[in-house]
Amino acid sequence: MKVSDSIKKNAILVNKFLRKELKGNPKQLYDASAHLIIHGGKRLRPFMVMKSCMMLGGKQSDAMAAAGAVEMIHNFTLTHDDIMDNDSVRRGRPAVHVEYDHPTAINAGDAMLAVAFEVLAESNHFDDKYFRELVRIIGSMVRRVSEGQQQDMSFEDRDFVEEDEYLHMISGKTAAMFTTCARTGALLSGASPEVVSIMTEWGENVGLCFQLMDDLIDATGDSETLGKPACSDIIEGKQTLIAIHALQQSADVLPNFNEIFGSGIEDTDREVLDTVVNELRQSGSIQYAYDKAMSFHAAAHACLNQLPERESLQVLRDLTDFQMVRIS
Amino acid sequence: MKVSDSIKKNAILVNKFLRKELKGNPKQLYDASAHLIIHGGKRLRPFMVMKSCMMLGGKQSDAMAAAGAVEMIHNFTLTHDDIMDNDSVRRGRPAVHVEYDHPTAINAGDAMLAVAFEVLAESNHFDDKYFRELVRIIGSMVRRVSEGQQQDMSFEDRDFVEEDEYLHMISGKTAAMFTTCARTGALLSGASPEVVSIMTEWGENVGLCFQLMDDLIDATGDSETLGKPACSDIIEGKQTLIAIHALQQSADVLPNFNEIFGSGIEDTDREVLDTVVNELRQSGSIQYAYDKAMSFHAAAHACLNQLPERESLQVLRDLTDFQMVRIS
Repeated sequence: MKVSDSIKKNAILVNKFLRKELKGNPKQLYDASAHLIIHGGKRLRPFMVMKSCMMLGGKQSDAMAAAGAVEMIHNFTLTHDDIMDNDSVRRGRPAVHVEYDHPTAINAGDAMLAVAFEVLAESNHFDDKYFRELVRIIGSMVRRVSEGQQQDMSFEDRDFVEEDEYLHMISGKTAAMFTTCARTGALLSGASPEVVSIMTEWGENVGLCFQLMDDLIDATGDSETLGKPACSDIIEGKQTLIAIHALQQSADVLPNFNEIFGSGIEDTDREVLDTVVNELRQSGSIQYAYDKAMSFHAAAHACLNQLPERESLQVLRDLTDFQMVRIS
Repeated sequence: MKVSDSIKKNAILVNKFLRKELKGNPKQLYDASAHLIIHGGKRLRPFMVMKSCMMLGGKQSDAMAAAGAVEMIHNFTLTHDDIMDNDSVRRGRPAVHVEYDHPTAINAGDAMLAVAFEVLAESNHFDDKYFRELVRIIGSMVRRVSEGQQQDMSFEDRDFVEEDEYLHMISGKTAAMFTTCARTGALLSGASPEVVSIMTEWGENVGLCFQLMDDLIDATGDSETLGKPACSDIIEGKQTLIAIHALQQSADVLPNFNEIFGSGIEDTDREVLDTVVNELRQSGSIQYAYDKAMSFHAAAHACLNQLPERESLQVLRDLTDFQMVRIS
């Protein structure tokens, strides 16, 4: 089965689980909590939890609650991030604070995070001995995401960001969740600490690769595929690795990029954007970010290669590659 | 020792614990998280956790992490509530979103909630057998607080709210936290399910009494003591039990109240406010809310009276009474 089909098949299970858990009163609170979940998402993170667990001999049912909890937390972060970043569109639909209002979106995010921990505590599919470690790493993950988000916001006030700072930021804001997914799956399978550690490193590399590819897709994709305006990172002046590289080049190599970067211009002509993307290709900025993504991709595979060879490793290899084929 | 002194003494321990845990990078995130905590608060909730545990034979150290976690969560809810309710002053100081900004306040709240669960998981002072139940009831508490907050916000669009709806709202928004504090303390002491259940009911009654007294203090206190504008609930049109009772009276009994209720007027003359409070006294609205508070106060004592008599019960009796003496 192609990994994209396997992800889709798994998403049906996850969606069923999420629909069951995100119900209650007041209805508006739970509707707002379910808003993003209903309108898309590939459920990559729960897939990672479940397949990591199963690859190491765990049962799918053992990982379901943790997978669902992580997806809830992912949607909690998206809901709050959209408010913090003032983004009004997500998955081609109004963000939660636009569809509802700011207070409801804040509150719906809070409720989702609370329900995630409740769901973990109520699952009878994993032993008490794993439970404490699970709460610890998931609590730590949410903290790391907050730290990354804060660092990302602080970049907005700065003219220049170092590559290392950017990588540290995305290792919190984005990769911490992938890291925790892989670690959680491995933990729940009952794997040895050594194997849990290899899987954790795999997750981190997949997460870093994922964010760099996301940046590349934002720069090179069209608004229809993206479900949001094209080149939005560039227009908003986001310090991605592409931008960091481009800003280090002489300004006359990228005149259009420098003009549009951080300008906040709305409804930019596709032709202008194409010129900007061409400049970023010619300056090597896109290649630079792509090469970095490839290096994390290679490091992720190297982690998997440390594990004893078995058939079920293939789905994790495919998932690792899936990050790279998202770009056309 | 007077209970207020005992609370103050306990707060020193709690503050030390909180200062240790709320540290990290980016500094701004942790400074924002610590903002409200640094600038006051009686630490009533951790006091309740710790004294409940100790009264039932548990050790103070056994309850410290849970007490600290609950106080962090309390401050997380205050931080987010102030944004949602558009309140700019808390404890006589700028709210977190005023001192910093909205995104940082949202993010600082999120981080506090995450750290609270991490702190629970990292404590070696309670057994794994309690840990799962603890995460479940604390997760459920946060969800109930969110539900209560959402219900409270929905009241703003309504001309009239039933008393039952109001009581259900405060049982989530305010009392859920007290309920959970008492339950947590009892649980960690190793008490029987029957005793845990009595303590839970005690906590709920203390919490309901607390909120009604808070409403009364808001109506009758002065701005200096309150650390926020006097009669703010009335001016904002909050459907407290006092307002619910007053709105049921003929409008010509409370002409000034009806004029000012929900008007949003700033810097209202103290003389006008005194007239409003006098109307609320004459209509029996203040007495009505006070009697209701007294009934929860009595119910709380009745819970404690079900427990075997022991010296250490006195501090919980004093804490129950402490709710009532806050009003002059």
